[in-house]
Amino acid sequence: MSQPQLQFDLAVIGGGPGGYAAAIRATQRGLSVALIEKHGAQQLGGTCLNVGCIPTKYLLDSAKTWHKLQKISKRGFKATKLSFDWQTILAGKNQLIARQRQGLRYLMNKHHVTVFAGHGSFHSSCSSADPHQTGYTIVVNSQNSAAPTTLITARYVILATGSQIKPLQILSQHQSTHIYNSDEILNIAAVPQHLAVIGGGVIGMEFASLFAMMGSQITIIEAQDNLLNEFDQQCVQELLKYWKSFKLKVHTATTLDKITPSSNTNATTSTLHLKTQHSQTTITADAVLVAVGRTPATTGLGLEHLAIKTQASGAIGVDQFGQTTAPGVYAIGDITPSPALAHTATAEAHLVVDHLSRPNQPPQPINYLNNPLAVYSYPELAAVGFTAAQLNQRNIPYSTAQVPFQIMAKATIEGYPEGFIKIHSHPSTTEILGVHIVGGRATELISEFVTARALETTLEEFAHAIRPHPTLSEILSEVAAQGLGEPVHAP
Amino acid sequence: MSQPQLQFDLAVIGGGPGGYAAAIRATQRGLSVALIEKHGAQQLGGTCLNVGCIPTKYLLDSAKTWHKLQKISKRGFKATKLSFDWQTILAGKNQLIARQRQGLRYLMNKHHVTVFAGHGSFHSSCSSADPHQTGYTIVVNSQNSAAPTTLITARYVILATGSQIKPLQILSQHQSTHIYNSDEILNIAAVPQHLAVIGGGVIGMEFASLFAMMGSQITIIEAQDNLLNEFDQQCVQELLKYWKSFKLKVHTATTLDKITPSSNTNATTSTLHLKTQHSQTTITADAVLVAVGRTPATTGLGLEHLAIKTQASGAIGVDQFGQTTAPGVYAIGDITPSPALAHTATAEAHLVVDHLSRPNQPPQPINYLNNPLAVYSYPELAAVGFTAAQLNQRNIPYSTAQVPFQIMAKATIEGYPEGFIKIHSHPSTTEILGVHIVGGRATELISEFVTARALETTLEEFAHAIRPHPTLSEILSEVAAQGLGEPVHAP
Repeated sequence: MSQPQLQFDLAVIGGGPGGYAAAIRATQRGLSVALIEKHGAQQLGGTCLNVGCIPTKYLLDSAKTWHKLQKISKRGFKATKLSFDWQTILAGKNQLIARQRQGLRYLMNKHHVTVFAGHGSFHSSCSSADPHQTGYTIVVNSQNSAAPTTLITARYVILATGSQIKPLQILSQHQSTHIYNSDEILNIAAVPQHLAVIGGGVIGMEFASLFAMMGSQITIIEAQDNLLNEFDQQCVQELLKYWKSFKLKVHTATTLDKITPSSNTNATTSTLHLKTQHSQTTITADAVLVAVGRTPATTGLGLEHLAIKTQASGAIGVDQFGQTTAPGVYAIGDITPSPALAHTATAEAHLVVDHLSRPNQPPQPINYLNNPLAVYSYPELAAVGFTAAQLNQRNIPYSTAQVPFQIMAKATIEGYPEGFIKIHSHPSTTEILGVHIVGGRATELISEFVTARALETTLEEFAHAIRPHPTLSEILSEVAAQGLGEPVHAP
Repeated sequence: MSQPQLQFDLAVIGGGPGGYAAAIRATQRGLSVALIEKHGAQQLGGTCLNVGCIPTKYLLDSAKTWHKLQKISKRGFKATKLSFDWQTILAGKNQLIARQRQGLRYLMNKHHVTVFAGHGSFHSSCSSADPHQTGYTIVVNSQNSAAPTTLITARYVILATGSQIKPLQILSQHQSTHIYNSDEILNIAAVPQHLAVIGGGVIGMEFASLFAMMGSQITIIEAQDNLLNEFDQQCVQELLKYWKSFKLKVHTATTLDKITPSSNTNATTSTLHLKTQHSQTTITADAVLVAVGRTPATTGLGLEHLAIKTQASGAIGVDQFGQTTAPGVYAIGDITPSPALAHTATAEAHLVVDHLSRPNQPPQPINYLNNPLAVYSYPELAAVGFTAAQLNQRNIPYSTAQVPFQIMAKATIEGYPEGFIKIHSHPSTTEILGVHIVGGRATELISEFVTARALETTLEEFAHAIRPHPTLSEILSEVAAQGLGEPVHAP
C-alpha cells in the first residue's frame, strides 16, 4: 500500500446526529476519533441537518407564521397586501443549514475529531484474525483525485451511515419534473397549486401541513387504513378535524397505480391514477411528493468482510448496547431497526460510546418506550410511552385521562386552543404509562413526560408540581388531576 | 336574627385562583362549600383573572406579536401599512376575561359550590367557646339591598382574599389622569408616547416590556440597586441587553420625589422629579405607572374576633399546612407571607383542602423552593430552586453550567435566539439545585425543572432523557451534559 495508514481508537462512518455526537463524546472520553463523511467536512449533519429535521422545521415554522398572519386582524393587527416571498423563505432555510454546518465544523475542530471526506467501508483484511485487537481497516474513497483513497485503522468502529429515500417502484419509468422526493421538495421553485402526497407517514404529513398552510390544495394518498399509524388515532383525527379548514383530501387504503401527463390543455399538471379495493379514480396535481419511507444505507460498507448480516428491512441488527456481531463494531441511528429519528440516533451515540469507553460500567440500555415521537405539523403531535393498543396487547391495566387545551387560558392567549392531552396511567400505582398530545406546542410539552416516564413518575407527583400560571405547561397538572379523579378546570 | 343561617362544611372567603380551587377540591372531597366573593358570582377569578395574570399575559402576547411583526420581512413575509388597533386589543383582552369568568361560573355550578356575593367577615360570636366544633359564623354583607346580610356557619374557613395595590404615599395629593396603577393601565386609552414605570419588580417590568414592544419610550425608576431583585442578576442583565433595542432608560437606586404638571406648553405630560443619593433629575412622561407592590387584603375580615394577628407586612401567618392560629381556619394565597403568585395560591388551596379533608393523612407541605418564578416579558425570565446567592448563604456546594439558546437550532428557527439557561447542581450527587432561564419561552421550559426538583433528579437522569429534535426543550439535555463536563453542542 502506498497510502499512509492512519491509526485511531475509533472510526465513525457517517457524520449525522448519531455520528457526530458519538465522535464528540468519544473524544471527551479520551479516544482519538476519525469521522468519515461522504459529503465531507463542509456538509456534516446528515439527513437531519441537510434534508430532514432542520430544513423541514424551518419551512414549517414559516408556514405556521403565514397561517398565523392570516388571522392577525382578529387580534387587532392590520396589514394590507400580505404576501410571502417563497425564495426568501428558501434562502432563510439554506442560511440556517449553512450556519449549523459551520457550527459542526467548529465543534469537530474544538473536540479534535479528524474528519475524512469520502465513502468509508471495511477493507477486505477485516475478515482476518482478530481485527478488534489489531484494528479494523477502513478504506475511505474520496472524490478528491489528489487523495483518492485513505486507509484508517481503528479498534472500534461505529456505523452511522443513516438512511436513504425509498423510491416508489412504479415511478421508475415515469419520472417527471412534477414528481419530488422529500429531499427535492425542500427546494421546490414555488408553492404548488395542488400537491399530491404519496404516503401518510410523518414525512408526508409534515409536508402536507406545510403546504396546506401555505395555501396549496393537498391530496394525501396512503396505502394503509390509517394515517400516522404509530400514533394514537384519536389524536390523528383531531389533527384532521383542524385540517378541515384547509383544502385537503385524504385517501386511505388507496394505492397509486400510475402517473401520466395530464391530457387536458394544462400541460403543467400530472394525473394520478388511484386504486382502492373496489374502485379507481384519478386526480390531477401540479406537484407530487413521494414520501413512502426510508431504507437503511448499508450499501458498499463492506459488511460482508465481517460477516455482519442485514435484516429483511435492510437494517443492521444490534444488541441492547448497539453492538453488531463483530466485536468492537457498533451501529446506531437509521441503519439499525430502532425509530429513524435524529434524537434516537444521538441517544444511541451516547450509549455506544459509554459502552466502549467504560467497559467496567455497562450503561443503562435505552428504553425505546421513552423515546418520544413528534410530528411538527399544525397542530403538532407528540407521544411517549405506550399507546392504548400496546397496553391492551400486553394486558397492562390502565386508566385514561384527557383534557382539551381550550380550557387553559394560555392556550387561548397564544392562539393554540386546538387539541388535547391524553394520559394513560396504572390504575393502582398511577405510574404514567403513555402520553399522547395533539396541540400547537405538543413537541415541546412532551419533554417533561420523557423525564417523568424515565423516573417512573406517578400522577400524584405530577399533579403536585407547581407550574407557572398562565402557561401551556399547566395542562400537565390538569391532566394529572383529571387522572386522579379531581380535575380543577376540566369541564 | 331575622336572616336565615346557612350551614356549610367549609366557607371560602375570596374567589381567586386560591379560593375557587379550594372550593372545587373541597366539593370533590364531599364537603358542602360556600364561596364568598365581594365582586359576586359574575366576577370570580380574583386579581389573577380580572386585573393580573390573564389580562397582562394577553396584552404581552399581543405586544410580542407586534414585536415579531416588525421583523417578518427578514423571514420572507411582506406587509404594507402594518398597524395595530389598541382598542381591538383591549377588547380581545376583555373578551378573554369574560370567557374565563363564564368558565368559572360553570365550574361552580358543576361542582355545586354555593357562591355568595358580598364582603365576608367573621361574626363577633366567633370569639366564643369552640367555633371549630359549633361552626364559625361568617357575615356576608351584600351590596344587594334585597338581601343586605347573610349569615353562614361553617366548621372550616379558608381565607383567600388576596391582595390589593400598594399606593405610593407621595402621590396621594398628586393624582392626575396621567398616573395609573397596574389595574388602571390595563385599560389605558392609547399606547403612551413615554411611560414612566415606578417600581422595577415583576409587575413593573412586565408592563415596561409590554409598552416597549408597542413602541413607547420607557423609563424605569427603582428604589433598590437591582431590578427584579429575587432573580438571578445575570439573567436580568441579559434581559436588559436585549432591551437595548427599545427606547428604554433605567434608573436604579432612585426614588420619585414628586410629580408635577409639566410647565412646558405640552399640557399632556407630567414631570417626574427623581432623586438619587447624590443628585436630582427630572423626566417628563405622558403616562406614569405606579407598581410598587401589593399588600395583603385583610381589612374588615373580623380577624380580631378570632385573635388572628397579622404580621408587620400585613400578612396572616400560617403553619406548614396553611393553618392560622384559630382551629379550622386556614389562609392561602396573597394574604399569607408566601410569594403572591396565582399558581402558589392554587397549590396552597390543594394543600389546605388535603389537610382539612383527610385528617388522618397529613399532606406533604409545599417546598417553596420548588415554586417557580416567572416574568412574561420578552425575553422571559423563569427560575426554580436556589439562586447562587442562596446557595452561598447556606454553604451548599454547587457547580454551575450555562448554555446559550443560540446554539439550539429550534431557537433560531422560532426566532428565540436570545438568552441562556443556567443550572446549579450538587458537585457530587449532581442533584439539580437551581435553574435560571432567560429566553423567549422560559416560562414554559421551567416546568420540567419543577418536576425534576420535586423528584430530586440528577443531571445524569436529566441528560439521559431523550427529547425530540429539534425542540427548545433540547437545551435541557444540553445544559445537563454541560454540567456533567461533556457538552455536545455548547461552544
